[in-house]
Amino acid sequence: MALPKENKRPVKQLRDQVRRDQIVAAARACVVRHGFHAASMGQIAAEAHMSVGQIYRYFPSKEAIIHAIVEDIVARRVEWMIDKDRRIDFAARFAHRGHVDASEDERSERVLLLEITAEATRNPAVAEIARAADRRLRDQAVELVRAMFPELSLEEAEARVEFVRVLSEGSAFRSVTEQIAAPALLESIYRDALERVFPGMGERGLP
Amino acid sequence: MALPKENKRPVKQLRDQVRRDQIVAAARACVVRHGFHAASMGQIAAEAHMSVGQIYRYFPSKEAIIHAIVEDIVARRVEWMIDKDRRIDFAARFAHRGHVDASEDERSERVLLLEITAEATRNPAVAEIARAADRRLRDQAVELVRAMFPELSLEEAEARVEFVRVLSEGSAFRSVTEQIAAPALLESIYRDALERVFPGMGERGLP
Repeated sequence: MALPKENKRPVKQLRDQVRRDQIVAAARACVVRHGFHAASMGQIAAEAHMSVGQIYRYFPSKEAIIHAIVEDIVARRVEWMIDKDRRIDFAARFAHRGHVDASEDERSERVLLLEITAEATRNPAVAEIARAADRRLRDQAVELVRAMFPELSLEEAEARVEFVRVLSEGSAFRSVTEQIAAPALLESIYRDALERVFPGMGERGLP
Repeated sequence: MALPKENKRPVKQLRDQVRRDQIVAAARACVVRHGFHAASMGQIAAEAHMSVGQIYRYFPSKEAIIHAIVEDIVARRVEWMIDKDRRIDFAARFAHRGHVDASEDERSERVLLLEITAEATRNPAVAEIARAADRRLRDQAVELVRAMFPELSLEEAEARVEFVRVLSEGSAFRSVTEQIAAPALLESIYRDALERVFPGMGERGLP
């Protein structure tokens, strides 16, 4: 059934958005399953049930798709950070890395970030995508920290946010290996370290 | 000039060792430059100035070459850990990640470990190589820590070693992004965290 003319544009926009999302999801799946390089435009097209030509109509390059993947991850993390109802126990989360609580989505996100970080070491376009994402997440975290700890200078907030990100990404990176250390002991070490940079963090849920 | 018969075996062994080293160095270069998947046996052979057939005489698979690369890295790290004359200021090292003091070798090692870790998420053979390497490094570090801090139980030593490895690998992982946080502030946060898990570590140089 033909739609009235004034409705055609929204329908096209919606369809374009659906296609973009399909392509991004297909590219994520390919990179997770085969690695950055082995995930070719042809493979992404097959996974998305489209032709390579259709893919290029939405994304001029593989880097453009990677950009969209990273934007998605950043948007979700920013939303997660500013969600005031969410209280995360970071010490418990970091200490039990890889064992509990890691959804399939989280696992695939870790693999994506490993692949993108590795690629960033040799591909300047991907490096710039990674850096821009990093800046946005840092700026958002620093803003939150300064709102909760107004006594901290900008530089102090930046250094503390960076430290927590090192803990977070180090824990994620190590989730590929066996976890031998006793989670309860590890949790208390994390808790102590976090408490020293963000006093009362356990109760406030940060950053 | 022909060598006396009794010397032939050592010469062959030496030549085999040189060939192996050449192949491993070529594979490292290929993985760093092109990524795990794009580094094919053909490319490794070209880089090593050998035929693919010659490579297979020394290594039955790409995984076997990766195993040798990882063994090399582990051997160097173990040697570095047990070197009593070496005193490393970990806090300074972690805080200035990527900016000072990172040799070409260190940078390429980071890329290798990113590539191998990413591949470990989808390739069980590579995952086992990564886990075995991780176990050896952890066991060595735990042994050293227990010698220096006999008051710690095995479990406590394991948890503290794991925490320092999270800091180390998180810092290395983040070396791909821009370092915005002021290194001096970051250094004092690291120093405080390390001092709490290994008191006097600054002077003792651990682990």
